[in-house]
Amino acid sequence: MNLLLLEADQLRGTRAVLSAIQARHSRDVLRAVPGQELRVGMLDGPRGVGRVVHVEDAVELECTFEPEPPPVPDVDLLLALPRPKVMRRLWAQLAALGVGRIILTNAARVERNYFDTHVLDPAFYRPLLIEGLQQAQDTRLPLVSIRRRFRPLVEDDLDALSTADARVVAHPADSASPIAAWPPGARRVLLAVGPEGGWDDFELRLLGERGFRPVSLGARTLRTDTACVALLATLRASR
Amino acid sequence: MNLLLLEADQLRGTRAVLSAIQARHSRDVLRAVPGQELRVGMLDGPRGVGRVVHVEDAVELECTFEPEPPPVPDVDLLLALPRPKVMRRLWAQLAALGVGRIILTNAARVERNYFDTHVLDPAFYRPLLIEGLQQAQDTRLPLVSIRRRFRPLVEDDLDALSTADARVVAHPADSASPIAAWPPGARRVLLAVGPEGGWDDFELRLLGERGFRPVSLGARTLRTDTACVALLATLRASR
Repeated sequence: MNLLLLEADQLRGTRAVLSAIQARHSRDVLRAVPGQELRVGMLDGPRGVGRVVHVEDAVELECTFEPEPPPVPDVDLLLALPRPKVMRRLWAQLAALGVGRIILTNAARVERNYFDTHVLDPAFYRPLLIEGLQQAQDTRLPLVSIRRRFRPLVEDDLDALSTADARVVAHPADSASPIAAWPPGARRVLLAVGPEGGWDDFELRLLGERGFRPVSLGARTLRTDTACVALLATLRASR
Repeated sequence: MNLLLLEADQLRGTRAVLSAIQARHSRDVLRAVPGQELRVGMLDGPRGVGRVVHVEDAVELECTFEPEPPPVPDVDLLLALPRPKVMRRLWAQLAALGVGRIILTNAARVERNYFDTHVLDPAFYRPLLIEGLQQAQDTRLPLVSIRRRFRPLVEDDLDALSTADARVVAHPADSASPIAAWPPGARRVLLAVGPEGGWDDFELRLLGERGFRPVSLGARTLRTDTACVALLATLRASR
């Protein structure tokens, strides 16, 4: 935890009470003592500093915040749902890398039973997203949308879900490097990442009709979680 | 497994016998039948095609190989040893992304007991490296060197371990994007990635004296495994 992320109900005025996990971390790892200053942030709000008031029983901080919250990350992700084990590993990493909205969908090469998993339950993934934000010192919780039907999602719902003015689809063929994914003047990018077996022809055509240009990291086939991290990092570095 | 990686003792002439895991994968996932062609590769040798001869008891393939092996990946990695749990997750991803040599070392902010783990045992990590190669369709097994003493490593041993003609160190300060890490004419890059808490001043100075220029992915602090994937992918995309 490089930043302690606070929810509204943890605050009374400028006084914050840490959660049990945060309190243990501040005692055992940060060795918090009264007077010490810790990095804090309000969920979806500004970052700031919390001065430790006391560490017995509950840990309480007296907080001051920056005037503005950090900007929402400028990349959205459309992801064909991977295996639950892979999705579980991804949540915290996506939040750490910075994603505005995560849209999970079906595809021909996604197995149906992947959707019947607790890994897609907000009670499961929200703490992992917060873990990623606390790692990266961000406060902007990614929005999560789960849309099982690919075609209505892409044809009807995408404009409402993402305001990105550039769209790219990862495709391990001879296409452009994601370095070139930001057209001049673009402010947000929506990145589509397919299933382990790839998008099928119908899906690729539909994405192409909706403005997704293919980008590629090269000939190596990567696992979905590695590919997502690799693509998001490359997009971010090329901004 | 997007490629079945074969070791020398699996081959008799051009006839290969798959290992138990490979045989199960070829029967259950690839639905192999006699006559079918599967992608194969010789460990540290060329890629090729294996035509299924029979699938009863053992699975046997009649193989033909390309004239040349793929090139050795053009990035080496100097990594301050992360927690065993994180290192375990990294092995396959490093091999999939493509690394010539992995050098693991100590640093002030590495806990000593990290070195006392089965995760650093070749019997543990070699199958994970091979898993990553089979994912990425590569045959080049990364070389692994474990050097607990940082200073003798950097001062005396690095030139022998890596022939890279460019060196960069990831440092989350205001430094250059890894996009710019390839100087004109450079053929190999050695990337240094520090512990979760960062390199200390002495380590940074020593690396600087030995030609490592700082690069950064920005203000977000990433977990070591996310950072390694992000940096290696960005280096690769900017080649």
